Amino acid sequence: MSGPTVAVLGGGQLGRMLALAGIPLGLRFRFLDPSPDATAGRVGHLVVAPLDDESGLSEVVEGADVATYEWEGVPAASASFLEARLPVHPGPRALEVAQDRLAEKRCFERLGIPIPPFAPVDDEDGLRAAVREIGLPAVLKTRRGGYDGKGQLVLRDPGEVPEAWSRLGGTPLLLEAHVPFDRELSVVAVRGRDGSTHCYPLVENHHREGILRLTLAPAPDLDRTLQERAEQAVRGLLEDLDHVGVMAVELFQQDGTLLANEMAPRVHNSGHWTIEGAATSQFENHLRAVLGWPLGSADALGASAMVNWIGAMPPAPAVLALEGTHLHDYEKAPRPGRKVGHATVTAPDPATVLRRLTGLAEGTGLDLAWLAPRTGAGERR
Amino acid sequence: MSGPTVAVLGGGQLGRMLALAGIPLGLRFRFLDPSPDATAGRVGHLVVAPLDDESGLSEVVEGADVATYEWEGVPAASASFLEARLPVHPGPRALEVAQDRLAEKRCFERLGIPIPPFAPVDDEDGLRAAVREIGLPAVLKTRRGGYDGKGQLVLRDPGEVPEAWSRLGGTPLLLEAHVPFDRELSVVAVRGRDGSTHCYPLVENHHREGILRLTLAPAPDLDRTLQERAEQAVRGLLEDLDHVGVMAVELFQQDGTLLANEMAPRVHNSGHWTIEGAATSQFENHLRAVLGWPLGSADALGASAMVNWIGAMPPAPAVLALEGTHLHDYEKAPRPGRKVGHATVTAPDPATVLRRLTGLAEGTGLDLAWLAPRTGAGERR
Repeated sequence: MSGPTVAVLGGGQLGRMLALAGIPLGLRFRFLDPSPDATAGRVGHLVVAPLDDESGLSEVVEGADVATYEWEGVPAASASFLEARLPVHPGPRALEVAQDRLAEKRCFERLGIPIPPFAPVDDEDGLRAAVREIGLPAVLKTRRGGYDGKGQLVLRDPGEVPEAWSRLGGTPLLLEAHVPFDRELSVVAVRGRDGSTHCYPLVENHHREGILRLTLAPAPDLDRTLQERAEQAVRGLLEDLDHVGVMAVELFQQDGTLLANEMAPRVHNSGHWTIEGAATSQFENHLRAVLGWPLGSADALGASAMVNWIGAMPPAPAVLALEGTHLHDYEKAPRPGRKVGHATVTAPDPATVLRRLTGLAEGTGLDLAWLAPRTGAGERR
Repeated sequence: MSGPTVAVLGGGQLGRMLALAGIPLGLRFRFLDPSPDATAGRVGHLVVAPLDDESGLSEVVEGADVATYEWEGVPAASASFLEARLPVHPGPRALEVAQDRLAEKRCFERLGIPIPPFAPVDDEDGLRAAVREIGLPAVLKTRRGGYDGKGQLVLRDPGEVPEAWSRLGGTPLLLEAHVPFDRELSVVAVRGRDGSTHCYPLVENHHREGILRLTLAPAPDLDRTLQERAEQAVRGLLEDLDHVGVMAVELFQQDGTLLANEMAPRVHNSGHWTIEGAATSQFENHLRAVLGWPLGSADALGASAMVNWIGAMPPAPAVLALEGTHLHDYEKAPRPGRKVGHATVTAPDPATVLRRLTGLAEGTGLDLAWLAPRTGAGERR
């Protein structure tokens, strides 16, 4: 017999991986996505309509027991429309906060979570004032709608203000200090309907051109204090937002300090390693949470490295020839800068993972030469 | 971009789990099954037709790159029909041998694989002669078509011959000595197109009413010699049959001796633990093999126990509440004696697995009291 049906707003690879985790549990999936090619349509029923289309929204939840989303850009009005019809997890507060970088930063501040200095920017004069207040270099970001490095740029000289304003201005912005950091980390956690929470170990992320390229899990040289600080931050957020489901928080590490960069109220690219590398994957735990089912252990099973395939997939046999490598092809059309798949390399220990990762890079032509050195500033997103 | 398309004859849970292993690799699936409710239809395109229907066979392989099957009962003529159109793995020799218990036993004998004494039976007089030759108790089996304990019965007294003949006779039979054994084991192995072979560790199986109930992986008290003997047997078979894909061999252990019971030229119920419990699942390795891709490691990641849900599923939350438990619901309608799902319990060590298994039994009402004691004859299938 089939179990509950889950409606998902968004039908990309995150939705697809939710379904691949949920189908073995007997769950059925319905997706809403504006594209008829949405990859989640291979593993569930796809309703093709914009995410703010009421007839599409009504159709995707037909017979569904719970609704969730794979993208924090889901219009708040859509979430409210659905909430009148069935349980929607995570709830609207997480969406509101995640959709507005200013609300997000104020939430971090309110909860005592350290963040880099920042200032809201509404016009070109405001940008000049913010540059004086924050100093340079600094990152100018749109308050809404950016992802994968889109909607942001680095300001290094006050003379760049007019061009920066002309490129991003006309919409509410935010200027953030370009703090020096040792490395970028993230923490993924899940909270159930009953408030129980599990945190995955902190992972180390490497970006290039604003796109996540590599995640090492658990983060190398992870100590108990660092993990506790990250867990404190994410648990504070989960409780404050009464969040149900998975949440990820991206962090900058400066010595022993963690500064929050941003949060995502959904399954996260830096958690893909959990499919093979953790006792329970982030996808299965998100589903367990939104269904009110018991959560699974978030323990790592060993060491893992996750690499994203950007633009195009390598030949499958070249990836699979390497021991401990798990391939994920999202079946997306190749396009420069597009995440089309990932691979996770697992091993009992980090040294073996790094050796296998090197083998994977050699076997597939994956360029890891840009990898940020462990100390010194990595590429700022 | 999508990878190759795989056509599968049979659309039951084995086909479903093949697809769930293959979709992440970018594969697409087409299934042929006589039932419109075939569970694999949730994860691929389902062609509804008998497995010997030429138009159904033609349709299921449209656009497919390779054909395989999830059931050894696939008519040999169907395999031949397809072989003229696309690569079919495993090839027809494995089907011929697996479909006829007499051919199977002669194959074991020819390869020097020990088996219990047996005699072919074609009529009631022949059955009497076989009883004199083999002795009692003995198991009378149809040469073709039995599964899950169907098509066989145990003869304990010569006076039972007429009734046994009336129940199973009229079709070629085989009488097999009811050898005393310590336990039932099985070995699952996979062979690639290039002849490379990987063997999973031997597992211990517990049956009840002819149906597999529990698999412990690796088999408790497994020693190197036993594993080597099993690997020698299955490697001999794989090479002799020029088999490509997964094969399972069921064995009886008598002290240090392994007697082959039967083989299955496909993914096997006693290999379901490999989804979470091995470096590469039997399903992924079968797909890698039939596609000519590199095989993955068959190493166990720790200890596992797999229990079948027979007749009906337990409530999902009761299963998931237990740490290290992985649920598989085949979305099949409940029916007495039907395999409708399974759960795999994983842990770093066998003692923890047994503790968790006990918790699972308590939480779901699963009856494990019938478990065969480690020594002394288990229930004969």
